[in-house]
Amino acid sequence: MKRRDFVSAAAAIAAAPLLSPKGVGAVRGRAPLKANGARLNGWLAQFDQIGRTATGINRVAYSDADLAGRAFTLDLYRAAGLAPRIDAAGNIIARLEGSDPAALPIVIGSHIDSVTDGGNYDGPLGSFGAIEVARSLQEQRVRLRHPLEVVVWSCEEGGLVGSKLAIEDAGSMSLDSIARSGVTIREGIARVGGDVSRLEESLRKRGSAKCYIELHIEQGGLLDRAGLRVGVVQGIVGLRFLDVTIEGMGNHAGSTPMDQRQDAVLAAAKFTVAVNDAARGMPGRQVATVGRVVPSPNTRNVIAGRVDLTVDFRDLNPATLDALFVTLERQAAEIATATNTRFSIRTTQRSEPALADARMMDVIASSASALGLSSQRMPSGAGHDAQSMARIAPMAMIFVPSVGGISHAPQEFTKPEDCANGADMLLNAVVAVDALPS
Amino acid sequence: MKRRDFVSAAAAIAAAPLLSPKGVGAVRGRAPLKANGARLNGWLAQFDQIGRTATGINRVAYSDADLAGRAFTLDLYRAAGLAPRIDAAGNIIARLEGSDPAALPIVIGSHIDSVTDGGNYDGPLGSFGAIEVARSLQEQRVRLRHPLEVVVWSCEEGGLVGSKLAIEDAGSMSLDSIARSGVTIREGIARVGGDVSRLEESLRKRGSAKCYIELHIEQGGLLDRAGLRVGVVQGIVGLRFLDVTIEGMGNHAGSTPMDQRQDAVLAAAKFTVAVNDAARGMPGRQVATVGRVVPSPNTRNVIAGRVDLTVDFRDLNPATLDALFVTLERQAAEIATATNTRFSIRTTQRSEPALADARMMDVIASSASALGLSSQRMPSGAGHDAQSMARIAPMAMIFVPSVGGISHAPQEFTKPEDCANGADMLLNAVVAVDALPS
Repeated sequence: MKRRDFVSAAAAIAAAPLLSPKGVGAVRGRAPLKANGARLNGWLAQFDQIGRTATGINRVAYSDADLAGRAFTLDLYRAAGLAPRIDAAGNIIARLEGSDPAALPIVIGSHIDSVTDGGNYDGPLGSFGAIEVARSLQEQRVRLRHPLEVVVWSCEEGGLVGSKLAIEDAGSMSLDSIARSGVTIREGIARVGGDVSRLEESLRKRGSAKCYIELHIEQGGLLDRAGLRVGVVQGIVGLRFLDVTIEGMGNHAGSTPMDQRQDAVLAAAKFTVAVNDAARGMPGRQVATVGRVVPSPNTRNVIAGRVDLTVDFRDLNPATLDALFVTLERQAAEIATATNTRFSIRTTQRSEPALADARMMDVIASSASALGLSSQRMPSGAGHDAQSMARIAPMAMIFVPSVGGISHAPQEFTKPEDCANGADMLLNAVVAVDALPS
Repeated sequence: MKRRDFVSAAAAIAAAPLLSPKGVGAVRGRAPLKANGARLNGWLAQFDQIGRTATGINRVAYSDADLAGRAFTLDLYRAAGLAPRIDAAGNIIARLEGSDPAALPIVIGSHIDSVTDGGNYDGPLGSFGAIEVARSLQEQRVRLRHPLEVVVWSCEEGGLVGSKLAIEDAGSMSLDSIARSGVTIREGIARVGGDVSRLEESLRKRGSAKCYIELHIEQGGLLDRAGLRVGVVQGIVGLRFLDVTIEGMGNHAGSTPMDQRQDAVLAAAKFTVAVNDAARGMPGRQVATVGRVVPSPNTRNVIAGRVDLTVDFRDLNPATLDALFVTLERQAAEIATATNTRFSIRTTQRSEPALADARMMDVIASSASALGLSSQRMPSGAGHDAQSMARIAPMAMIFVPSVGGISHAPQEFTKPEDCANGADMLLNAVVAVDALPS
């Protein structure tokens, strides 16, 4: 089936009205387009100096370093012949007009803000890659039929803030919550040139874009370990965050017999093992993690009376998430009985899976083939602005390898050739999608 | 066998040269002695106001509240006709001479310092109980053959400091370590009237006492739950403290497949379950506790790369402790392999069990019978100054119930009638031991 889809996509590419005078394009049997990878890597190297501290990249949203990074990025837009504007949510947007005034825009982009003590590739690669694609198209005189929108979303690491506000998905978001930089989201957006009182005006409606494509580093080790160059993202996993409180009875570790304990640490341990067993006991690629464990008291010679822990579980299939939750609830009840403790489980966050568009996955797989790049289909375990855009348009993502699977850390690194491959992939995917029938 | 021991002890008691003009003593078929329980409870009620804060009793050793508590206690000594002195280690000692100038002293006592946010009974009951016994003996004109020493050990909660220094067991103790009150032990001892440069002079040598008897609250819930009035302590458990470090690999909770994880929290959970299973899987009353668990990082969406945890295990039998340690080492190796993590295990503290003297346990059980108090033999899971004294003399301890098994907490409570019972028990045990052949 994939093979047939591939041919179909390739045929669509062959029909693309590429306007390159040289006739170069991602057309079957002809050399694909190439972006300027060296230029892109030069930008990334320069950008690495903005917000770099002894403990990593610190360009948290709305900080001075973020403002400096945005100024750098606006210059890149302008140097690419684009006229950037800031929307009400603080996102940077520029538009390259296409040949068909009635066509919906193809939207590409990513973010440039970082986590605390993060790296230089998570976000900037896709943002600068998108600018590079717009610049290459113009330099190579490839005129698309569709307009091309190049977007740098604001405050992605704070919870997809810019992209959610752009699609009216701010229901669970408080503009008064405090961002990593210490200001409220409301203040931060004003700081970067947005205006939350005007959010309504710039809302993106369902069906208002041809598609959205985001280039990003993998943030995991699948590609690196497999020695593959490109990940064709099948979707962004849905997730459930649980806060679990286990209450037992604090007591003296020396004088309380084993059969009279209500040991919250023991109950938490059994539950942690159960979470792992549940995720591994089902077919599929679902993951489940107990990441945070806080006993009270947390001391050597006292049986802890309470443990607070978190569970994070994710999958592309919502039914799997529901089944996991049911299993964990049942396990908690059994462990509570066995250990004479009480469990309370609260779902603190849930997001539904955002699936990539099947036809666009085929386009991206075809582009990889045309570029001679090995690829595999894979889920994204991490969240991305593409989740937001998937709510209003067909979505696709292109992954390139993270060395050692490391991300959100100073050691985060993607090789220059993989960065260049990513830009080539995005360029050819845009051209191919431009040719797809609506 | 116990029955025969009982008769034997009672016979010994019957032979005691009690000098009471009224002929009242813990003699078979005659009424046992009674201490003044109301007076003792009055002292405890007054003492509750010294160092009482919003979060509990805070009479940590060498603090102003401890000094106030010691001043109060010195007054109790004097009111009991005793002349207290401070030894080089800061312990308060007074001696009631016996009829035989050559006889070794019977030593009784406890401590009055508290933990942070502790209660009013752990220590003071045994200390004031001992003073009350000396006072009752005089009031009731019971003259012992042996001298009676009434001791209040300094800084018990800081690691049996006063009693260890008194028996030359300071090998592992640094006088420069910081006590809870913020001063060094050296400074603290000077503050309470001791002088560490003179420690040698006051050392208690092996065989220098007839015996040591300590009255104490149980600090566990065995007596309270069983509805028993007295615990005849079989010994103070030995313990091993382990620091365990588990190293895995920190990684993204969303993008790392289950089969490629090196999850230190999961390994810690499996080990915690193994610790519990090991302790419960052997016959006996041994206990084992994972009390402290610290993942790094300790956050929702990251697989922890490291966990530090502690294991505390205790038993009266050193062979059981050794067997448990071997089991835990083997389990750690198996779990390390199963989870692709590394364990390192360090023994940070070990103390050997201190067994009570068999003949003295019989004396105490007999005293309980004579007083009409239900009793059971039981280990002490908590440490006591009696451990130190067991190194140089036959040792025994008398437990009375802690309501709800609570100790080292503001809710620590022992009923007035149990406090009074404790003093009666100590009084009759002293009289009975006084009559035992050497």
